[in-house]
Amino acid sequence: MSFMTVEERLDKLRERMKNESVDVCLMTSTDFHASEYVSDYFKVTEFFSGCTSDNVILIVSRNSAALWTDGRYFISAAKELEGSSITLMRTGEPGVLKVEEYLSKILSESAKSTEEEAGASDGAASDGQAADGEASGSEASNRTYLAYDARCIRADRGSQYRQIAAACNAAVKDDFDAADGIWENRPEFPANPLWIMDESVAGQSVKSKLEKTKERMKQKGATGLILTKPDEIMWLTNLRGNDILFNPVALSYMILNGSETVFYIKEKLMTKEIVSHLSSCGIELRSYDEFFKDLAAVKWEGRVMTDPFSVSDAVIGTLAEAGIRPLLSVSPVMALKAVKNETELANLRAVYLQDSAAVCRYLYRLDKYIKEGKFSPEGQLSYKETDAAGELDDMRRTIDGYLSPSFETISAFGENAAIVHYEPKKETEAAIREGSFLLLDSGGQYKNGTTDITRTVPIGEVSAKMKEHFTYVAVANLRLLTAQFRRGCTGANLDSIAREVLWENGLDYNHGTGHGIGYCLNVHEGPQNISWKITRESIGANTPFEPGMITSDEPGFYLEGEYGIRTESVVECVADETDETGRFLRLRPLTFVPISLDALDVSLLDASDIERLNAYHEEVYKKISPLLTDSEEKEWLRRMTAPVL
Amino acid sequence: MSFMTVEERLDKLRERMKNESVDVCLMTSTDFHASEYVSDYFKVTEFFSGCTSDNVILIVSRNSAALWTDGRYFISAAKELEGSSITLMRTGEPGVLKVEEYLSKILSESAKSTEEEAGASDGAASDGQAADGEASGSEASNRTYLAYDARCIRADRGSQYRQIAAACNAAVKDDFDAADGIWENRPEFPANPLWIMDESVAGQSVKSKLEKTKERMKQKGATGLILTKPDEIMWLTNLRGNDILFNPVALSYMILNGSETVFYIKEKLMTKEIVSHLSSCGIELRSYDEFFKDLAAVKWEGRVMTDPFSVSDAVIGTLAEAGIRPLLSVSPVMALKAVKNETELANLRAVYLQDSAAVCRYLYRLDKYIKEGKFSPEGQLSYKETDAAGELDDMRRTIDGYLSPSFETISAFGENAAIVHYEPKKETEAAIREGSFLLLDSGGQYKNGTTDITRTVPIGEVSAKMKEHFTYVAVANLRLLTAQFRRGCTGANLDSIAREVLWENGLDYNHGTGHGIGYCLNVHEGPQNISWKITRESIGANTPFEPGMITSDEPGFYLEGEYGIRTESVVECVADETDETGRFLRLRPLTFVPISLDALDVSLLDASDIERLNAYHEEVYKKISPLLTDSEEKEWLRRMTAPVL
Repeated sequence: MSFMTVEERLDKLRERMKNESVDVCLMTSTDFHASEYVSDYFKVTEFFSGCTSDNVILIVSRNSAALWTDGRYFISAAKELEGSSITLMRTGEPGVLKVEEYLSKILSESAKSTEEEAGASDGAASDGQAADGEASGSEASNRTYLAYDARCIRADRGSQYRQIAAACNAAVKDDFDAADGIWENRPEFPANPLWIMDESVAGQSVKSKLEKTKERMKQKGATGLILTKPDEIMWLTNLRGNDILFNPVALSYMILNGSETVFYIKEKLMTKEIVSHLSSCGIELRSYDEFFKDLAAVKWEGRVMTDPFSVSDAVIGTLAEAGIRPLLSVSPVMALKAVKNETELANLRAVYLQDSAAVCRYLYRLDKYIKEGKFSPEGQLSYKETDAAGELDDMRRTIDGYLSPSFETISAFGENAAIVHYEPKKETEAAIREGSFLLLDSGGQYKNGTTDITRTVPIGEVSAKMKEHFTYVAVANLRLLTAQFRRGCTGANLDSIAREVLWENGLDYNHGTGHGIGYCLNVHEGPQNISWKITRESIGANTPFEPGMITSDEPGFYLEGEYGIRTESVVECVADETDETGRFLRLRPLTFVPISLDALDVSLLDASDIERLNAYHEEVYKKISPLLTDSEEKEWLRRMTAPVL
Repeated sequence: MSFMTVEERLDKLRERMKNESVDVCLMTSTDFHASEYVSDYFKVTEFFSGCTSDNVILIVSRNSAALWTDGRYFISAAKELEGSSITLMRTGEPGVLKVEEYLSKILSESAKSTEEEAGASDGAASDGQAADGEASGSEASNRTYLAYDARCIRADRGSQYRQIAAACNAAVKDDFDAADGIWENRPEFPANPLWIMDESVAGQSVKSKLEKTKERMKQKGATGLILTKPDEIMWLTNLRGNDILFNPVALSYMILNGSETVFYIKEKLMTKEIVSHLSSCGIELRSYDEFFKDLAAVKWEGRVMTDPFSVSDAVIGTLAEAGIRPLLSVSPVMALKAVKNETELANLRAVYLQDSAAVCRYLYRLDKYIKEGKFSPEGQLSYKETDAAGELDDMRRTIDGYLSPSFETISAFGENAAIVHYEPKKETEAAIREGSFLLLDSGGQYKNGTTDITRTVPIGEVSAKMKEHFTYVAVANLRLLTAQFRRGCTGANLDSIAREVLWENGLDYNHGTGHGIGYCLNVHEGPQNISWKITRESIGANTPFEPGMITSDEPGFYLEGEYGIRTESVVECVADETDETGRFLRLRPLTFVPISLDALDVSLLDASDIERLNAYHEEVYKKISPLLTDSEEKEWLRRMTAPVL
């Protein structure tokens, strides 16, 4: 990034907005593919705000700026925006305007001031019809303009923004990349080599995946499909890429149209090997940069469908200009990808054992440090959050098929752990010392799986209140870990199985309880999740749980300015083999790492919770001890998994 | 009813169908108002099938008949249909065709046989456009006809049926009352006197209710509203009727259009008192029989809205013919009615105490009978299910403001209790004897409230398995009874708080956990409910829980052919006063009747479940003992509420 301050960057942007007659500029933290994490090229909101949160919307007008993010980032975003001219908008909190409400307000205000500037003669006469016009010429300069890059806006939101603009008598300029011409030394657009996942590892051929996808399309009455999510395209083609840090995907698009399948990637990725792999499956390659031009020109054989929860405003707009209204329906590829096949499941079970053993080895080492007094008042306090993250990450490196972490390891001590998505930074990280929790949330990308685990470790003695909260979180995690439920249940049904123990004590955590996880793909994937909030997405996209789905179980508790706790294991959904009626499914852990007994207040546990804890720990010992070679590690594991009474 | 057998009635219907060129006839068990319970006039499906279930769809073709009902009635419907030519279709069970699928199949088959009969010359040439034509003349006789009474069909279903018919090249005859001309001695269309609920009891004036309704309409952009649900109209007008057994409502419609409000009831109900009450609130009265004619002619001042979950196909059809497409949006009256006002809440709390005391007095008497050996092998076995129901109902009669039961009392012994909505009949009822459960589900309509309670009583000693199941149901009931949860939660989130204890033991019950309850109105009302299944209705209509909502908490367990258990208390939703953040709501019981300790296996209870049980029983004793005058009753209550260890 350049050396300008945030305020200098905003000044530059406002200068450009003025030159181009833009009154309000809206930016998002996502890329052209609705990715949760993005490559540096797309970090436009961070460039203009300094805020590193995901799920950000930044709205800049000539004299104000406001930034929305969700509960996971309230604490970190507040810190990062401190002292800036940007107002933090905490999405969903009472009294906080929604993006749409704010946009409506600010566009109306801008319209007024534009009218005042322009003499307000024709402002009132203009109508919403011209909302898509270009901001040029003398007529345009009298209009209010909302500008954004439609490739970075989800279609449903784009549609709302256009409606709001029309209602406020404003026009939309939808090809406005705010960073253009301002961001010096902007990182290059990512285009890193692809690799082929062998069919023996993928468990299914590309042809078979294409067939299944087309079956699902047919059920919906479609013969065409537009895929814009890289992880779906990677799964479908048995390819993996490297365009987003920790996400083994290549930025790409795909168009299925009858018997034709076209895959769009950057030209330099089209190696002989990749071309051969794809053409053997009947897939044609074309340049990523041709996608929108091609999209406008496709002669669809029948109805075309696309996923309403990820498709961009630019894609829908391009189709609309060609007179095409696609069927908006949950991506069949997302649904197929979520249910892991037997090969994937077998590999996942194995890799989670290896991954668990690696985490155990680090937790043993950490325990030794504690016992040695490394974090005592007399200790040197030289061991910090990034040291823990580094040593933990190192434990995974020797595991077969290891590629990288599956996300930036969260190593958060004390009050930092209350920041849900905290990432330690060398300049600001905390030293680890006795009396609080170290929260470690980490995972690995392996050629045969993706892992994710959180354990919270008490460093030395912690307070009774901390133990109480730790215990509730452990209970929540354990109750869900092996929960049994009716076929047909969604995450909205299951969330309270975990969360109720916190709710009944007047506590809660500001994030979902679980997310789907990819297979050597994104660490967060849909469609299933575990959350009590029934959102538009979860109604539309969240299929009920099915055997073969992999989901995290990660309740937590966070006390701002004090400490944070999260206990996360990953579970697979299985049919209950003891149930003859076939009515029941249940969850079964893939993660086998002890939950610290040192922070448990056993007096708060019900008999059935104790049973769950002991059963889990017994299984942890049985499965992980054979993977530990060091006898002290084994002995530590034996102690950490000893039954409580 | 007439003396014909079901088969004779079906023969008569098929004769009429043949005469009127109808191939397939569809009937429902509801009335013109989507009522759950209906007056005898509307019991057309019962007339033609002998099946007394609610929520029935009966489809009769020239040579087959099939009847759908839901899980509550699977057992009773199977018994009632035994030996008939009607196939029972268990809604939602695997492998059972949905109504729509069956309709599509049978209409296609009928189309084929019609074609064969007619020589198949023009069958293929006809299209869906004429689907609404009349079945008369020589051309019509060559077409396949689906017939139903559109007033008894929900609009969304009607729309589906029409689509299916069109796809099968069939026409729809939508004014076909199947019983017409066949049902001799059909009961009269109900038109029973209305009474006025004083404002001091209603807690809110009609004017104020109308204003609030219009506010909600305005928020949706509507100035018109069509109300078709009698309980909503009763609430809005502070009137009560008597057209449906146990439901204090009058069959009625209402149209709001700008400042005009028109109330449609049978002319003979328009007494001077009622006319005066309504006109003082600016409400005009017109004849019930004019409703559809008026509806077709209304000049709407702006957008008109109606509730998509209750409006009939006939209403939507009448509007469509007049060129009106209403805004389909959850009834604002339903939402307002669900949140009880302070007067209603105060009265409900008081009446539930009286009602609980009445139930306690009966349970004391039943316990005495048990102790006296009335149900022992040596006993006379002369005390049967209806005796229990009668004595229980009698206990309520002396309570101030008592009107009637709020539904037919369910007194079900032994295997009968496994039939969820069993109603004992003199000819078939069981004698009560030792060794099984007596399930008593009853309620009262009072001028100041509606009650609903279920307790299951072990008669003598019951088996360990029965105790185990009884205990799970008690735990489920108690966990939900005082559950605390986040504002914004819906019943889909809360259901598993109760149900998980059954699920984790591989058990379940085939009904929801809770329903809303009216205020001297229907014992089942929306929009909130507690059910894990997220249906179209619950997505659209189920508002999150709000303080002031009254809901039942009634988990159960049923073993077909053996026994049934249900424990039901009614709860109010309150804001948790100890929570400063305002984030939490909780449930608080209105019902205070002991849960039988004799059937509890305390060894299965967690410490926190024991705490919940003891706390509830302590409150029961504190609140109910002052209402018992008999010292033996008081002593019994003391024993029944003694803490378990």
